[in-house]
Amino acid sequence: MEQVLNPLAIAHQHVVFEDGLTLDGGAHLPRLVVAYRTYGTLHPSRDNAILVCHALTGDQYVAEPHPLTGKPGWWEMLVGPGKPVDTERYFVVCANVLGGCMGSSGPRSPRDEDTAELWGTDFPPITIRDMVRAQARLIAHLGIERLFAVIGGSMGGMQVLEWAATYPERVFAAIPIATAAYHSAQNIAFNEVGRQAIFADPDWAGGRYWREGRIPARGLAVARMVAHITYLSEQALTRKFGRRLRAASVLGPYSDVFEVESYLQHQGSSFVRRFDANAYLAITRAMDYFDLAADHGGEVAAAFAGTKTRFCLVSFSSDWLFPTSESRAIVRALNRVAANVSFVEIETDKGHDAFLLDEPDFHRTLRGFLDGCAQHAGLSSAGAP
Amino acid sequence: MEQVLNPLAIAHQHVVFEDGLTLDGGAHLPRLVVAYRTYGTLHPSRDNAILVCHALTGDQYVAEPHPLTGKPGWWEMLVGPGKPVDTERYFVVCANVLGGCMGSSGPRSPRDEDTAELWGTDFPPITIRDMVRAQARLIAHLGIERLFAVIGGSMGGMQVLEWAATYPERVFAAIPIATAAYHSAQNIAFNEVGRQAIFADPDWAGGRYWREGRIPARGLAVARMVAHITYLSEQALTRKFGRRLRAASVLGPYSDVFEVESYLQHQGSSFVRRFDANAYLAITRAMDYFDLAADHGGEVAAAFAGTKTRFCLVSFSSDWLFPTSESRAIVRALNRVAANVSFVEIETDKGHDAFLLDEPDFHRTLRGFLDGCAQHAGLSSAGAP
Repeated sequence: MEQVLNPLAIAHQHVVFEDGLTLDGGAHLPRLVVAYRTYGTLHPSRDNAILVCHALTGDQYVAEPHPLTGKPGWWEMLVGPGKPVDTERYFVVCANVLGGCMGSSGPRSPRDEDTAELWGTDFPPITIRDMVRAQARLIAHLGIERLFAVIGGSMGGMQVLEWAATYPERVFAAIPIATAAYHSAQNIAFNEVGRQAIFADPDWAGGRYWREGRIPARGLAVARMVAHITYLSEQALTRKFGRRLRAASVLGPYSDVFEVESYLQHQGSSFVRRFDANAYLAITRAMDYFDLAADHGGEVAAAFAGTKTRFCLVSFSSDWLFPTSESRAIVRALNRVAANVSFVEIETDKGHDAFLLDEPDFHRTLRGFLDGCAQHAGLSSAGAP
Repeated sequence: MEQVLNPLAIAHQHVVFEDGLTLDGGAHLPRLVVAYRTYGTLHPSRDNAILVCHALTGDQYVAEPHPLTGKPGWWEMLVGPGKPVDTERYFVVCANVLGGCMGSSGPRSPRDEDTAELWGTDFPPITIRDMVRAQARLIAHLGIERLFAVIGGSMGGMQVLEWAATYPERVFAAIPIATAAYHSAQNIAFNEVGRQAIFADPDWAGGRYWREGRIPARGLAVARMVAHITYLSEQALTRKFGRRLRAASVLGPYSDVFEVESYLQHQGSSFVRRFDANAYLAITRAMDYFDLAADHGGEVAAAFAGTKTRFCLVSFSSDWLFPTSESRAIVRALNRVAANVSFVEIETDKGHDAFLLDEPDFHRTLRGFLDGCAQHAGLSSAGAP
């Protein structure tokens, strides 16, 4: 059994912006809380900061054990001393996204300071750009004028693109990984299945489950299960499980016969102990809304006109949720505005999840690009005084 | 609104086998009911019968309005007078599968003649081969010794393969469409998500919902929604819906903002009015169990050793649920036993669903293959006395 604590009992490092945040949807969030973690040391010149943007179900615990589950940080393979994102060289920041459930303002946070009442489904709709604006407040609060790099995969990659589009002067290098400039109809459809599964759970209670001490565990687990299938390639599922049986006899019960089923059920049930259903609704919705072209007169290229940011896009050959073609479309848009852009498709059979896994080619790519950018930016090298 | 009647109030044409059926799982079904429909006329020589095998959520109403929904038969484009499966020439039979909910023995049928008690989840686990054995009883009952052809797509294609493997002497031609020799880990995973959504619905009531006058409508709808995504290609979803909005404002509620969402919700809610949740569980389970190689010493080829049946396999280029590679694998296995086999991959962006849609190349292929087989079999031509 994993160790799991009461989510609301955890104190997360955070900063409060009492003036709040006005959102793309027009609502004004009266009080903005951004929970975050940092790794490494900010140079006195404040030029070595890297912002890591997390994906749908990620959080700010990039390179240290997760406070709820005790599991290693979700990108420990990539971020740490001597790692590709070298914390002996760079100052790494990661914030829990707006709408999240690990300390930043979201459906599970209190409506205001004086009340225990949670936002729940009354939390206003948010966009990826709203998430980025909240991060920008944090970055300014940390005294960082320009980020050396912004990095993220999947929904994290959407944030990277939005950073480069919204704050071009504040991003020296941008690394959008396994992502797209808009959420496709198929991806919206999969998200919608997850949302309907949550709505169908009577313990969701119209979003007011916290008030009644309930959790829509079954609906949220189904949402996680269907999403998890999309994170893996068909080959990865076949390699990991194939048609291997759990039960002694194949003609057993309706469920839990094949290993792949138990695996998915485990993914579902462990997820609900660390994630909030209303946050899942809010964040999947933000992903669905994401459409960089629509926000820039119908042209992705227009989002990056005149950019000086150096881009490195990474895709994974067996990723069918954010296929290589989507990254190529972004590269073409960047080429159209003569941006400085490189692109690598990593050969792997691990699917979308590859950005979280041990993929040496990917890690080499990231290290090399950051090294190159550090030279261009005139950053002092690792270990130098 | 579609017209939908009470499912249990419908009388389906059927035959009862009082000696029942012994199943692959070892259980003996004490009484076997096979509901079926026929189209066209059986020659006095009984050599012109074509068995159509339906897919997961299909039924025996191939070429006439559905008695519950009033919609056209699911394969009216293909089956009828002058159509590729020409009912002026062939005698077409289609049975509701064992485990189904349109009159054949299944979870929604009475346990025995004298009771109103339904099987529910006590219905024993079934396999694709069990479905085929039930069909074989019907075919014998109709006085047909050898079927001129067996045709089916998706799970229907699995039945075609099983017919050719189990009763090689009774199948002159076999046309497995958009299918595979086994259910993949990914397909099992998607089925499992659907089942978990049904289990999570409190109205499922442990499978005894009929007794309490309830229907697990939300869980079954979620199951249908996720399955429906897999039936369409990414391109088809994009072409049909893209990111078109339903709501006036994009930053609206959590759901029902994009057209693709409403479409899926409609697919889900209309499905629950015509389909039984326990039947869905039983049939998806049968699909998951399907593994022709495992049943024949680990070799698909062994299932067809010495076969005289003429095969025509059809796949669709954008089908990612039963991709072309799976059909090719069957073709290779048939080649290894020097079977008479042809194979066509139809170029289309419509995904798995293409086997149910207007695909002229597919229809021409089917008509041509049947014509050729009719010549080889010495069938009298259409309209001849």
